[in-house]
Amino acid sequence: MNSQKPFLSDNAAPVHPKIWEAMQAADSADIPYDGDALSQELDARFSDLFGRECAAIWVATGTAANCLGLATLCQPHGGVVCHEEAHIEVDEGGAPGFFLHGAKLMLASGEGAKLTPDDIAALVDPIRDDVHQVQPHAIAITQASEYGLSYRRAEIDAITELAKARGLGIHMDGARFANAAAFLGGKAVEAAGHVDTLSFGCIKNGGMSAEALVLFDPEQAALVKYRRKRAGHLQCKGRYLAAQVLAMLDGDLWLENARAANAAAAEIGSAAEARLMYPVEANEVFMRLSAAEREALRQQGFDFYDWGADAARFVAAWNTKAEDAVALGKAIAGL
Amino acid sequence: MNSQKPFLSDNAAPVHPKIWEAMQAADSADIPYDGDALSQELDARFSDLFGRECAAIWVATGTAANCLGLATLCQPHGGVVCHEEAHIEVDEGGAPGFFLHGAKLMLASGEGAKLTPDDIAALVDPIRDDVHQVQPHAIAITQASEYGLSYRRAEIDAITELAKARGLGIHMDGARFANAAAFLGGKAVEAAGHVDTLSFGCIKNGGMSAEALVLFDPEQAALVKYRRKRAGHLQCKGRYLAAQVLAMLDGDLWLENARAANAAAAEIGSAAEARLMYPVEANEVFMRLSAAEREALRQQGFDFYDWGADAARFVAAWNTKAEDAVALGKAIAGL
Amino acid sequence: MNSQKPFLSDNAAPVHPKIWEAMQAADSADIPYDGDALSQELDARFSDLFGRECAAIWVATGTAANCLGLATLCQPHGGVVCHEEAHIEVDEGGAPGFFLHGAKLMLASGEGAKLTPDDIAALVDPIRDDVHQVQPHAIAITQASEYGLSYRRAEIDAITELAKARGLGIHMDGARFANAAAFLGGKAVEAAGHVDTLSFGCIKNGGMSAEALVLFDPEQAALVKYRRKRAGHLQCKGRYLAAQVLAMLDGDLWLENARAANAAAAEIGSAAEARLMYPVEANEVFMRLSAAEREALRQQGFDFYDWGADAARFVAAWNTKAEDAVALGKAIAGL
Amino acid sequence: MNSQKPFLSDNAAPVHPKIWEAMQAADSADIPYDGDALSQELDARFSDLFGRECAAIWVATGTAANCLGLATLCQPHGGVVCHEEAHIEVDEGGAPGFFLHGAKLMLASGEGAKLTPDDIAALVDPIRDDVHQVQPHAIAITQASEYGLSYRRAEIDAITELAKARGLGIHMDGARFANAAAFLGGKAVEAAGHVDTLSFGCIKNGGMSAEALVLFDPEQAALVKYRRKRAGHLQCKGRYLAAQVLAMLDGDLWLENARAANAAAAEIGSAAEARLMYPVEANEVFMRLSAAEREALRQQGFDFYDWGADAARFVAAWNTKAEDAVALGKAIAGL
Repeated sequence: MNSQKPFLSDNAAPVHPKIWEAMQAADSADIPYDGDALSQELDARFSDLFGRECAAIWVATGTAANCLGLATLCQPHGGVVCHEEAHIEVDEGGAPGFFLHGAKLMLASGEGAKLTPDDIAALVDPIRDDVHQVQPHAIAITQASEYGLSYRRAEIDAITELAKARGLGIHMDGARFANAAAFLGGKAVEAAGHVDTLSFGCIKNGGMSAEALVLFDPEQAALVKYRRKRAGHLQCKGRYLAAQVLAMLDGDLWLENARAANAAAAEIGSAAEARLMYPVEANEVFMRLSAAEREALRQQGFDFYDWGADAARFVAAWNTKAEDAVALGKAIAGL
Repeated sequence: MNSQKPFLSDNAAPVHPKIWEAMQAADSADIPYDGDALSQELDARFSDLFGRECAAIWVATGTAANCLGLATLCQPHGGVVCHEEAHIEVDEGGAPGFFLHGAKLMLASGEGAKLTPDDIAALVDPIRDDVHQVQPHAIAITQASEYGLSYRRAEIDAITELAKARGLGIHMDGARFANAAAFLGGKAVEAAGHVDTLSFGCIKNGGMSAEALVLFDPEQAALVKYRRKRAGHLQCKGRYLAAQVLAMLDGDLWLENARAANAAAAEIGSAAEARLMYPVEANEVFMRLSAAEREALRQQGFDFYDWGADAARFVAAWNTKAEDAVALGKAIAGL
Repeated sequence: MNSQKPFLSDNAAPVHPKIWEAMQAADSADIPYDGDALSQELDARFSDLFGRECAAIWVATGTAANCLGLATLCQPHGGVVCHEEAHIEVDEGGAPGFFLHGAKLMLASGEGAKLTPDDIAALVDPIRDDVHQVQPHAIAITQASEYGLSYRRAEIDAITELAKARGLGIHMDGARFANAAAFLGGKAVEAAGHVDTLSFGCIKNGGMSAEALVLFDPEQAALVKYRRKRAGHLQCKGRYLAAQVLAMLDGDLWLENARAANAAAAEIGSAAEARLMYPVEANEVFMRLSAAEREALRQQGFDFYDWGADAARFVAAWNTKAEDAVALGKAIAGL
Repeated sequence: MNSQKPFLSDNAAPVHPKIWEAMQAADSADIPYDGDALSQELDARFSDLFGRECAAIWVATGTAANCLGLATLCQPHGGVVCHEEAHIEVDEGGAPGFFLHGAKLMLASGEGAKLTPDDIAALVDPIRDDVHQVQPHAIAITQASEYGLSYRRAEIDAITELAKARGLGIHMDGARFANAAAFLGGKAVEAAGHVDTLSFGCIKNGGMSAEALVLFDPEQAALVKYRRKRAGHLQCKGRYLAAQVLAMLDGDLWLENARAANAAAAEIGSAAEARLMYPVEANEVFMRLSAAEREALRQQGFDFYDWGADAARFVAAWNTKAEDAVALGKAIAGL
């Protein structure tokens, strides 16, 4: 059932061999939940990675990571500003409404599914400060964005500054954080800036079933752990999730995998730059392609999602073969 | 960090080799979420197992399985009758309150953490049928019970009959369902009776991160799938969870593992029957042991939980070595 | 502190003398909650009014009425389609998120804060039928709309037809239902069509603290009564609320009051038709007026809300004096 | 339909004439919600009453007052310790689960529906401080208790001390606070001690539809106002609720009414002290009476609730006639 030339998504790619190894090495431990040595190591490892003290806990999905993070920043009667095409708005089945007990997503527009301080202010400033209107409590941005664009450090800082000025928290959905960080030069902090909470994605980057939720206010960890348990997300064999996350950090596997995926995406994008909807800044390529052109590609064995009536999305993963990317590029160029 | 003679719990035991194999075999597929062939196979396999049509979906924890199941049976303004020592009441961090949007657990007493129709009626019947009092919507029982007792088919049927008579749904927490089924002779339906929903435990029985939620009204599956997504429990590489569950059913591994654990528990129990708080009907042994006696056992290298001031709980797992069980039995007999 | 020439809103107008009388007449009864004779009368009275069997219960606010109604039509994981300027979206402090346990409001555009089947279809049809996207469960429309426009029977029927075709419930926010009904000729059913639930507003129409939630599927009443209690909305002296609602129906006081308010609004509107943003079809008037013109009116003692930078909203109430409306009309005409 | 000799409850008694007057005097104001002068006066009046700064807001029911108060003290993943017969547990239809988003009521035992520090410690201390168990966040006590017993100041202080030591908030359900305060000598602070939040009951004491929620940490008021709106409890003609509460305080009407009810209850209790289940310390009388005796009383025209198989509850209200109380006392004495 697996595709020969798959550019559908990175979300079903196989598990990286080093992740398998790390999981199997965790077999012998026998401390349940997150009491094991691996889980206990996460805080220190992420504090090292980001160069400031933080807490990190594993969860099984990006949706859970995003929602547990947001729940530290937004009360049930508040709102979270996000892009109108953000994953939390369009692809998480209403999970924020569940985890945040009915808090509201407040939808802003922005080019390439990125937000600017102006986009946010345009949404937030007209809201009257009274009990009749839901007040914004937090902002959520996605790194890389839903169109594969990476926020530069200065862009994040500008949003963070706005957030602080308005008393809002800021969460970063980092389902493809590694791809953004790799694109931006490989320093984690450059891709994260000083957000309050970050879902550090591993699954789309060669992991199996573990993301890390990073809390830059470590005191929130106690609260989040209660909420993780309450959401049925505290696995008793959590060491297998910790092992995945740690293996991702070991020897910068997270960057290595992301670079491979980004390179494949860049290869595809460079083959037909005029068709690009957005520059390729991570591992996703959005191209203008007519229905007939898409059909022609599919006839050649390529698999991908249509993106509206006139475009397609190609996603490269850690295991995308260079020759497949080259072949796709050539096929597009030859249309 | 792993114990030499561990009888603490079955919840952190290593993953069974056949489960590992099945997971790795799932690597090549590339359909995300539960669209893969393995996930799609679950309904048929469980329908076979129980001899009636049902739907089955994977989730990562027993807490999620219990709560998603209960949410099909109890509305937010209703209540779920359970034993006062039930896992959903004392060990799930309030997850039922979260998943059921504030529904209430209604606590009944019962010997050995089992409930009888009389126990339930004693709780339910005095409730006035008016809006001032939370009305019961469902019953939850645990198979095997929190004291390792297995409900006999006739006992389940009697409760089910009461449930139907009162218009209540019935959920079975089967975190150790395999152990009960093995004890009762190995037929799944004998251990499940005709409950409405069942969390079919795999993790304590050699799995890593997958339980099956079995819905005996298959029409509920659509609803549950929305709720699973909304709770952040729809993993994109769900095939690795499906693989675990299917491997557990292949060649009756679920029973084989449970029998091994039950046998070890029986061995321990038989060594000092007079000390037993309850008969050993699964893989847990509750024994009256003074503090001094427990200390003496620990000095000999045995690891276990105290159970109140005068007792201890020993749990055997699929990988408990026969000689360890024998040794523990002898040590207890020799006190 | 009360205005001399108040056109701010109808929501703080004094209580009509007949409502006071009815409340005081309820003093002698002594049955608590909704067991009293007045509360028990509501179902029959509203069934008469609408010419089909329905249940009706009192609640203290329109927000509660709307949310309790919607909760019968939309599950926690679903969505409610409404206009982007609907009261439930912009003025109820997130109450739908609370009462519906995190369900989502799905915002449609539409002229004059009214929705058409096309507006709704444009929003609903692109939603993929999978668990990643919140599915619509219900539609909410407002009669009269937030811009004082009244849906004609055929318009409601068209939306209802769409709703049935898509399996959606339909709720009508009738905070100013009386004004719409009066405008449309005085027949309740012409203004309500065949919606599933209706909040029948009394408070803006001369009541004190009671709206009626009308359930055209009377079987939902039992559910709603549990939810009303659970939301802290079951008042023990509910007879005083029932009395208000019944007095509103007696002798068609609801229409009489609405006609008075509508007439005053029509008077104002007719004074400067070229300035009208929308035709006057209830008791609200939206007029294009510059900041300087608004200031000039305020200097003459008129009180009203600015509506954006270039307009004003005037609301007439049951007690608006004809001479005040005439005076305002003249003042506007004379600008 | 009204009883001749009603001792069923105080919750359906007529509205006191002074309350009617105050409401009607509020007719002329026209500021909606709680922006009116009366609503704005509440903070100062209650700060005076309790001799320390506090905020006070009106709500329509005791259930809403209790739940909004508790929501300031307990997060969704926490628990509220209360008596197993507390109103919030047995008579509010699960409202705490709704308002607190699934938080748990943790049930303690205690004589006469009162709690002592020992009762609370016995429940709270065995709870392990880990994420598997719901942690207590707050304590709720009822003044006067569900059996009409009044906590003495020293008793409240002892509980408050325990609460502070364990980091728990403390709420007082004061549905019959006035009756307790009257019994205790008439000083509000003696009956409230230093709890964090108090629902100050008016409705059972001659009001119509307003209780005051008193927040002794005034900074919580902003939060509570958002939550009140979100729960559909912000009435647009809130001035009529404020008027009720203020009239209750004017000239100590709250104490006057409570003293009348208490005196009637005392009269009944003194007639047959040997039958009393509890001393009469407010306006409720619980008496041991056989079914035959109860029947005999009913034959004489008295109305009341059975309390289990062998007792009855009589409640006096502000308007209970002295001769009715005397008559009931005589009737009981004569059995």
